[in-house]
Amino acid sequence: MDADLVLADLRELARLTGGPDGARRVCWTDEWVTARDFLRSRLEELPVEVGVDPAGNLWADLGEGDEFVIVGSHIDSVPAGGWLDGALGILSAVGALRAYADGQPPLRLRLVDWADEEGARFGRSLFGSSACAGTLELDDVRDLRDRDGERLEDVVARHGVELDRVHESGEQLRGACAYLELHIEQGPVLESRGEPAATVLGTCGVERHVAVFTGQAAHAGATPMELRRDSFAATAQAALAIREIGLSHEGGVCTVGGATSEPGVVTAVAGRTEMLLDQRHLDPDVLATMLSEARDACERAGADQGCEVELRHLWSIPPIPFDDRLIASAREAVQESGGEDTAIPSGPLHDAAEVARAGIPTVMLFVQSLRGLSHTKLEDTKEEHLELSVQALDRLVTKTLDRVAGP
Amino acid sequence: MDADLVLADLRELARLTGGPDGARRVCWTDEWVTARDFLRSRLEELPVEVGVDPAGNLWADLGEGDEFVIVGSHIDSVPAGGWLDGALGILSAVGALRAYADGQPPLRLRLVDWADEEGARFGRSLFGSSACAGTLELDDVRDLRDRDGERLEDVVARHGVELDRVHESGEQLRGACAYLELHIEQGPVLESRGEPAATVLGTCGVERHVAVFTGQAAHAGATPMELRRDSFAATAQAALAIREIGLSHEGGVCTVGGATSEPGVVTAVAGRTEMLLDQRHLDPDVLATMLSEARDACERAGADQGCEVELRHLWSIPPIPFDDRLIASAREAVQESGGEDTAIPSGPLHDAAEVARAGIPTVMLFVQSLRGLSHTKLEDTKEEHLELSVQALDRLVTKTLDRVAGP
Repeated sequence: MDADLVLADLRELARLTGGPDGARRVCWTDEWVTARDFLRSRLEELPVEVGVDPAGNLWADLGEGDEFVIVGSHIDSVPAGGWLDGALGILSAVGALRAYADGQPPLRLRLVDWADEEGARFGRSLFGSSACAGTLELDDVRDLRDRDGERLEDVVARHGVELDRVHESGEQLRGACAYLELHIEQGPVLESRGEPAATVLGTCGVERHVAVFTGQAAHAGATPMELRRDSFAATAQAALAIREIGLSHEGGVCTVGGATSEPGVVTAVAGRTEMLLDQRHLDPDVLATMLSEARDACERAGADQGCEVELRHLWSIPPIPFDDRLIASAREAVQESGGEDTAIPSGPLHDAAEVARAGIPTVMLFVQSLRGLSHTKLEDTKEEHLELSVQALDRLVTKTLDRVAGP
Repeated sequence: MDADLVLADLRELARLTGGPDGARRVCWTDEWVTARDFLRSRLEELPVEVGVDPAGNLWADLGEGDEFVIVGSHIDSVPAGGWLDGALGILSAVGALRAYADGQPPLRLRLVDWADEEGARFGRSLFGSSACAGTLELDDVRDLRDRDGERLEDVVARHGVELDRVHESGEQLRGACAYLELHIEQGPVLESRGEPAATVLGTCGVERHVAVFTGQAAHAGATPMELRRDSFAATAQAALAIREIGLSHEGGVCTVGGATSEPGVVTAVAGRTEMLLDQRHLDPDVLATMLSEARDACERAGADQGCEVELRHLWSIPPIPFDDRLIASAREAVQESGGEDTAIPSGPLHDAAEVARAGIPTVMLFVQSLRGLSHTKLEDTKEEHLELSVQALDRLVTKTLDRVAGP
């Protein structure tokens, strides 16, 4: 396909919807509508049929038949985001359709632009894809409010989405033989290995907890060290132990993103500290072990510092492995496009995980992110790597269409 | 003196100005005025002259002469505070005056109720005593605002205090031969030793800093452990090392009261964390060593976790030792009242520190705090300990008056 056209489209989208602080294509806002209008303008040049499903996902169909291959991503961004996150996947999917625009693809090829992947306005990511996959709990999201106090249900209604009907979008997957998505890595692994692109093995399972340490608030001047029950000291001890847990499990990550103490002032021993904990691994057994070890570390730290400990569950999702046959095709496609035979798990979640959960064979491609940065205007990828990844997606689409349509 | 009367006064004050959440005698509020009116009502029963100085400090004089001994404390409290903090010192000072009300003290005896010891409304403690001692920087406090946005200068004016004249209160100290104050310990040391009361050797020096660790914010899922520059991990490592520094210096305390991270969410490695640090010791050399060791610990933690470190100075005050002769008298007074010969430094600051800085020989007495709690409605002291401490203050006043007046 013509990778230059894809890069030109990306730059034009950034010009239309970017600003000095970065991308502003936040879902359910006017600038997201602008981004979608741009997408529609590019699709109008192709012999495709465009529609929006009841969850707000945009679909474009090239070719005919009950069975089809999907290629997609999301055009929405976080506020002050980067120019590639989601947009690369969408505009390279347009490129994949464009490659077949003059003839007929061997199987129907569908583009999807998932609505609200980021969840930037209401805090619930993967809105459109989870609605489509049937995992979105309507009553969990109905009353979510944005910063201005507006309800999710009211806001999506203004964009033609009736919340109680979003699961009807699931019909779109009937006949799907494969789902393919190209995305930036959003992490530093490929750059650290000096590799342009990789196949994604699946998305890691995630365990999110808040560890609550309760000691005794006390005067910082009047309370000798040995008589303290210091909840911040317990948190510090647990956080360091949890870091070691992450280091000790190959492919695992454990993150303490911060802690909030009460009273939380310079003149007092912290009586109560809440510590944020996120753990991820592609192997469900290793993830369970990491969680169990983190629980032990919190209890040991609490005991050492005279604090009570409670681990509150926030959210979790199991690891979602991608399809072996598609992984094999993706590895070939990356190598044929000039990359190495690299396959890594994805720590971040993606719409592809929801599609895979719905039982559709799925695979993703990652392209290197410079300095591992994403969700910032500093997000970038070398042009040669973008080109390579767009070509790899094109090869993967072709391989998949040919294989599924084949004898 | 009659300790029962002092305890009855304390209970009456708590009834007048306490509530289900504790004491509410916040300075420059109506309930502080109520507390002062109660104090005046008790002073009216004595042959004393009562006045308020230009800093809002209330003085009551018993007897005549150019030279005098001061006994005092503060009647203001934090919001939701305890019934004894400050109030015990004030009402036992009333008791000390009452003991001489029938005759003439050998030297003029003055009571002082310092204005705004707590600084609860504007965040600047020791307002009245530092004004009197000449250490209050007017331009540092003039524009301080309370929660409702009211300026300190405007609020104190409504209570008859013209900010630009507060240093005139320093005249009150001319002729002062000694300053004596009884206060609750506000810490757990005496309870842990099973002792009712103690002499205070002086107030610890304090060093307050914010340690700022700057790493790289990164996606919690996409960033392998070994590629992180995690500012929270650096903070945790520093906080544990600083705890060890406190433990290793007898009589010293080091407190990390909390930390604030950016972005501070469960899904991100913290790119920047600010850690609150408070260190105290009675010996200036040891305090300097503790600060230097804390600085090293922060730099080591930053280096280990790939973070930049900056130690920002917030505030400091040197150790303020009390007067040796008064310390000796106080030790005798405590023992003669049934206590042990105990002398400890004060970690918390007190008005007495400001008076001592002004060159007035000063000493304090501490009485045990149950469970070491203060600044909460749970603050309490056994009745027998309160009685012992009131008697000890009375003895200390008598000894001091007699000595200074003596041949």
